[in-house]
Amino acid sequence: MDVSLASDLLARVRRTNPLIQCLTNSVVTGFTANALLAIGASPAMTDIPGESGPFAEIASAVLINTGTPHADQRVAMVEAARAAHRAGTPWVLDPVAVGTLPVRTALARGLLEHRPTAVRGNPSEIIGLADLGSGGRGTDAVDTPDDAVPAASALAASSGAVTAISGPVDLITDGDATIRAANGDVLLTRVTGGGCALGAVTAAFLAVAGGGPAGRLHAVAAATTAYTVAAELAASGADGPGTFAVRLLDSLASVDGADLDARARLS
Amino acid sequence: MDVSLASDLLARVRRTNPLIQCLTNSVVTGFTANALLAIGASPAMTDIPGESGPFAEIASAVLINTGTPHADQRVAMVEAARAAHRAGTPWVLDPVAVGTLPVRTALARGLLEHRPTAVRGNPSEIIGLADLGSGGRGTDAVDTPDDAVPAASALAASSGAVTAISGPVDLITDGDATIRAANGDVLLTRVTGGGCALGAVTAAFLAVAGGGPAGRLHAVAAATTAYTVAAELAASGADGPGTFAVRLLDSLASVDGADLDARARLS
Amino acid sequence: MDVSLASDLLARVRRTNPLIQCLTNSVVTGFTANALLAIGASPAMTDIPGESGPFAEIASAVLINTGTPHADQRVAMVEAARAAHRAGTPWVLDPVAVGTLPVRTALARGLLEHRPTAVRGNPSEIIGLADLGSGGRGTDAVDTPDDAVPAASALAASSGAVTAISGPVDLITDGDATIRAANGDVLLTRVTGGGCALGAVTAAFLAVAGGGPAGRLHAVAAATTAYTVAAELAASGADGPGTFAVRLLDSLASVDGADLDARARLS
Repeated sequence: MDVSLASDLLARVRRTNPLIQCLTNSVVTGFTANALLAIGASPAMTDIPGESGPFAEIASAVLINTGTPHADQRVAMVEAARAAHRAGTPWVLDPVAVGTLPVRTALARGLLEHRPTAVRGNPSEIIGLADLGSGGRGTDAVDTPDDAVPAASALAASSGAVTAISGPVDLITDGDATIRAANGDVLLTRVTGGGCALGAVTAAFLAVAGGGPAGRLHAVAAATTAYTVAAELAASGADGPGTFAVRLLDSLASVDGADLDARARLS
Repeated sequence: MDVSLASDLLARVRRTNPLIQCLTNSVVTGFTANALLAIGASPAMTDIPGESGPFAEIASAVLINTGTPHADQRVAMVEAARAAHRAGTPWVLDPVAVGTLPVRTALARGLLEHRPTAVRGNPSEIIGLADLGSGGRGTDAVDTPDDAVPAASALAASSGAVTAISGPVDLITDGDATIRAANGDVLLTRVTGGGCALGAVTAAFLAVAGGGPAGRLHAVAAATTAYTVAAELAASGADGPGTFAVRLLDSLASVDGADLDARARLS
Repeated sequence: MDVSLASDLLARVRRTNPLIQCLTNSVVTGFTANALLAIGASPAMTDIPGESGPFAEIASAVLINTGTPHADQRVAMVEAARAAHRAGTPWVLDPVAVGTLPVRTALARGLLEHRPTAVRGNPSEIIGLADLGSGGRGTDAVDTPDDAVPAASALAASSGAVTAISGPVDLITDGDATIRAANGDVLLTRVTGGGCALGAVTAAFLAVAGGGPAGRLHAVAAATTAYTVAAELAASGADGPGTFAVRLLDSLASVDGADLDARARLS
């Protein structure tokens, strides 16, 4: 994948300010909204029944994250996924702790019926979502990205989703082509929402991407690269996880094509 | 309006630490509580049925923000608004995304029956709340503050509320007199909760204000000025939206009468 | 209590990354998760019915904080406390605003049946939980730590909990022995979640502590000391509450045995 494509999509997010609806967990709502604002998108956390469906029809893209899926929010998630699929709105599923915990595992597998445009999770979550294993201990991955490739292929075959498997090297696949994205910093694992916010940024890139499987695959890889390069810029000079998280928002607002050219590690 | 009045109210907030009950959206709870603590008030996010009403009777003021109005919270909001009105506790309504989304629009219009002391929103939300138009796309305003003056006048006539319409120049009116407040920084629109926290700070100023329509109008203008002057101080030297939000909390804790004298732009 | 014991427990948290389940209030979820990550633990905010019980059986420790106890979360809290008690998982109760507000007061007193390992609150909350007085105005304490000693003794007798009473000098007691911990900074009271995050850190230290009453007492005191020494390090050089909160996360990640040796004030 050519890095200039990532730069083009980043510029398009900044220029068009896509409206990204997030139904996400209570721990990371604020950080996720700030990450979207920083990268140039417009967040809306519309996640109640009766509103989430109509909003998914007008949103540029939707994120559904299963981190704290309270009863009302589960209803709103199904409503939003169904409406997004019907309206052709791209949507991203982040199956937090799926495979480990029963309520969200049933929820997330049911959401696959509405054909997410992309899925993003750690290896254990991807395996758990595809029902090919028993998963890890919550948000911690015990498997490696390569362990989850069969699960990602199964997801691509059954739901059509591009799947991003997080790890030291992120692996992004549509079941056929696979991109490896090797940017990032270990501090991303020391702040809450480091991965969840990337799910939202991925939705923003899908909102401005070209159609077709290749367009989706490249959009997910571009979002991953822009976000993880920003994380590298933020880590340089951070005094710890507190200052890193603050600097990450600054970097998301400033990262540009020149940064991607200089740092992107895509293969 | 004389700037010294704003300084007096700010000093009174710091001296008396009013107890501000917030029923607000899940995205901004933490930032809102921190903004209240920084300015010198004492926050309490009491927002469940059976507790929100009794608490509204003892609170110094109440904020109701419709950003993520889950079913339980909607019940608690009606309970708090009714109790606040009966007990004479000042309360502020921030009608996030009202006019666009059906559940919260019905909720917010119903809350007007309990006569909010002040309403604060962007032009589209004010127009949507007064039922004079169809609103924007969530938290983004597509109308200008002046477009919303007829709606603000209608709200003043029907509910008695002082209305603050946000924009590059905020417009604050009780239906008769109008104050324009021109401080602030564009970075306020690049962090989530930038406006929501001002709703809470407005409640804190109303808690310590003199009675009568003029007292309320001046309290809302004073809160707006103290907050947006703090934003200017925070923006100077910020590296982006992340550091800006952190510095805003520092500035809310340090902003004083001298800063207001030097910077306030009220007319 | 010997300071080296606190250093040993801190090192053990860093080495073993205990999995800490938090059922906490919506205001502080993000900050609490970040504090746990910074100190070296692994947070999981699993707080829905049907998942909170099974998770409490596999978690290293559990925190239950009553700050915003919505209906679904109350059910999940009872489920988690029961499961933790049965499975022998240590759990901490932070009775936010108990004694003042009716729903959470009934909830928290009922949770005592499941024998929390530790309780942490301000004097008014401890008195309110033990049903020995009428409490304060929410999160603000109007009593002093010494006022709450009879309540703490009553809690120790009825539920076996080690109780930490917050104040300028924290008082930690198992009903017999009492430790006074005198570190900290007033800025901790100017950021939301300053106390709530300590409840979570306390759970992390209990997860790695030796058994028996003395082990629990020392673990609570060690957590308090590590956290409040980190707060002192963060306060030095902070420009206000915003930068303090960010620096506190950095300090929680860097605080070590040498810092505790140099600063701990335990008696």
